[in-house]
Amino acid sequence: MQDRYACCLIVKGANIMPAIIKAVEFDGALRVIERPVATPEAGEVLVRLRLGGVCNTDLELMRGYRGFRGTLGHEFVGEVVAGPTEWLGARVVGEINIGCGACDWCQRGIPEHCHRRRVLGLHDYDGAFAEVFRLPLANLHRVPPALPDDTAVFTEPLAAACQTLECVHIKPGDRVILLGAGKLGLLTAQVLRLTGCDLLVVARHTRQKELLAGWGIQTVSRDDLSDDTADVVVDCTGTPQGLDDAIRLVRARGTIVLKSTYADSAALNLSPLAVKEIALVGSRCGPFPAALRLLEENLVDVQSLIDARYALSDAPAALDHAARPGALKVLLIP
Amino acid sequence: MQDRYACCLIVKGANIMPAIIKAVEFDGALRVIERPVATPEAGEVLVRLRLGGVCNTDLELMRGYRGFRGTLGHEFVGEVVAGPTEWLGARVVGEINIGCGACDWCQRGIPEHCHRRRVLGLHDYDGAFAEVFRLPLANLHRVPPALPDDTAVFTEPLAAACQTLECVHIKPGDRVILLGAGKLGLLTAQVLRLTGCDLLVVARHTRQKELLAGWGIQTVSRDDLSDDTADVVVDCTGTPQGLDDAIRLVRARGTIVLKSTYADSAALNLSPLAVKEIALVGSRCGPFPAALRLLEENLVDVQSLIDARYALSDAPAALDHAARPGALKVLLIP
Repeated sequence: MQDRYACCLIVKGANIMPAIIKAVEFDGALRVIERPVATPEAGEVLVRLRLGGVCNTDLELMRGYRGFRGTLGHEFVGEVVAGPTEWLGARVVGEINIGCGACDWCQRGIPEHCHRRRVLGLHDYDGAFAEVFRLPLANLHRVPPALPDDTAVFTEPLAAACQTLECVHIKPGDRVILLGAGKLGLLTAQVLRLTGCDLLVVARHTRQKELLAGWGIQTVSRDDLSDDTADVVVDCTGTPQGLDDAIRLVRARGTIVLKSTYADSAALNLSPLAVKEIALVGSRCGPFPAALRLLEENLVDVQSLIDARYALSDAPAALDHAARPGALKVLLIP
Repeated sequence: MQDRYACCLIVKGANIMPAIIKAVEFDGALRVIERPVATPEAGEVLVRLRLGGVCNTDLELMRGYRGFRGTLGHEFVGEVVAGPTEWLGARVVGEINIGCGACDWCQRGIPEHCHRRRVLGLHDYDGAFAEVFRLPLANLHRVPPALPDDTAVFTEPLAAACQTLECVHIKPGDRVILLGAGKLGLLTAQVLRLTGCDLLVVARHTRQKELLAGWGIQTVSRDDLSDDTADVVVDCTGTPQGLDDAIRLVRARGTIVLKSTYADSAALNLSPLAVKEIALVGSRCGPFPAALRLLEENLVDVQSLIDARYALSDAPAALDHAARPGALKVLLIP
C-alpha cells in the first residue's frame, strides 16, 4: 500500500504540493476522473482513503436527491497525509457535517444541525471517494489499532444506527418492531438488541433473515404482525410506506423512530398520530465515539454485511452492485 | 329550570320510567327529534343536560368524519337524575371515552385508548345534546359549586388543551409557537402561558387577536416568523397545512405537538423530520381534574370565548353559527 503515498506529498503545515488523484465524480452521470488534489482550507487536513463504503444515500444522490454534484462518498477510513504533526499517519474515520463554526449549533458542538453546514459527499463539499480528500481536523476520530479497516469503515452508519437510542429511550420491557433490514436496518437491529428489548425485525430477503437469525434476532413477515402492538417501531425502510405501516403497528402512546429520508412526497393522513397520541421522532447522524467503542468491543457484527469489494476505479460497477435489491455493503479500495 | 325534571323520573336504582325527550340527531342530516330516554346499562347513569358546547369535531362529524350516526354532543355540564343515591342531583361533567373495562388500557385507567372504546357523541354512543342522556358513572366528575355552568361546560376542551403539557415538557426558556387560534387554540394558548414559556400565537381573526392581547399573549402573523426558530410548535390549525408550517418553523431537535385531526390525506414529505431530528407528538383527550382545578382557580378565561347561546331545539342554527369562520364557542340550552 505504501506506493499510494506517492499520489501526494506529506508535509507538516499548510503547503501542499498538488498532485493528480483519482476521484468518483457525479455530475449527472457517474465517472472516475483524475484531478488535482484539493487544497485544504483553514482547519482542514488531507486524508488518504484506505477504504470507502457505499451508502444508500449515494444511490439517492445519483437519483437526484439534493441536486448534488461533485465527489461522492461519506463512509471511509483513511490516513492523515497533511495536517498537524501529531496527526500525520493517524488512521481515522470522520464525521460528515462541516459546520460554519460560528452559529449556536456549532458553538454547542453540534455542527450536524448548523444551518450553513456542508456535508461530506452530500452537500456542497467533495466526498471521500477520492484517493486523497480534505476534511476539517475537528471531524476526525482516531481508529483504535485493533480495528481493521473493513470494520472501521462502518463507523459512520453504525453511529447513525446508535442515534436511534440517543433520540429514544428503549427499555428491556419494550416490544420493538424494526421495519426494513437493509444496510442501516441490520446495524440498527444489532444496536436495538443491546437494549434487551423484545425485538422483531420485518425482513424481506433471505440473506437478511439468515444474518438476523445468526445474531439471535427474530424476524417476522409484515402479515404476521398485529396492529397496535409495538411500544416502539423503528422505520428503516427508506420509503413513505414505512411510516404508514409504523402508524398502524405502534400502540397508542407508543413511539415511532423515523430513520428514512426520501425525495418524494406521499399522501399521508397523520390524524392517527393525534388520536393514538404517538410520538414520531426523527433521527439522523450519530455519535462516532460510541460507534467506535461498540466495534472495538465486538458488540456489533459488521464483517458479515460486506457484500463485495471493488477498486475505486471500478466505482460505477460498485454502485450498480449496491443498487441491487437486497445488496449489503459494497466497499471501495483505492 | 325545575320543570325540566318532568322529562324523566328520578329514581334510586336501575328502574327508569321511559319518557320522551328532545335530542339533536345526525343521520346524514341534522334534526331535533323527540325520542324515548335511553335505558342505562350496567354502570351507567342518566344525566340531565344543563348546558352543551359545540366543538369543531361536531362539525367534522356532519361532514362525514368517522361516519357517525346518532345523537351529537360531547361537551356538557349536567345533573345526575338516575343513578346511585349519593350521585342523584350532583352537577357533573363527563369524560367522553367509554372503554370495554377489560383490556389492558381500561385496567390501567386509560379508557381513551381502549381498542373497543365507544365515544360520547363521536363513535357508537349517543351524545350529550339531548335533554337526558346516559353515561357510565365512572366517566363523571363533580363540578365544584363555585363554577357556573357556562364555565364548567369548557372542562372537556380545556382538558384536551392541558393534554399538550401532559405529552410534552414545555419550559420557561422555550420559544413556543402556537398555530391556530380557534376554540381549542385559544384554550391551548392560555394553558401554554401557564408554563412561562416565550409564546407567540399565529392568529388570523381580529377577535382572536383581541382576546389573546387581553390575556397578555403575543400574536404574530405567519409571515413575520422565521423558519427553524421555535423550540416547540403546537398545531391547532385542524388542517394538514399546519403540520407543514410547523416542520418549517421548529428548530432542529425541536418538538411539534399535533392537536389537529382531519378527514383528508395530504401530500407530505416527512424527510425533514429525520434530517432536523424533530419529535412530532400527537395529543388528544386530557385530564378532567386538572381542567376543573384550572377553572376553579381562575387561571383560564373561558367566558370570553362564548359566542352565542341557542336553545337545544334550535341546534341546526347553533351548528350553522359554529361553522362560521372565526366563530368561537356556541352553547346549547335545553
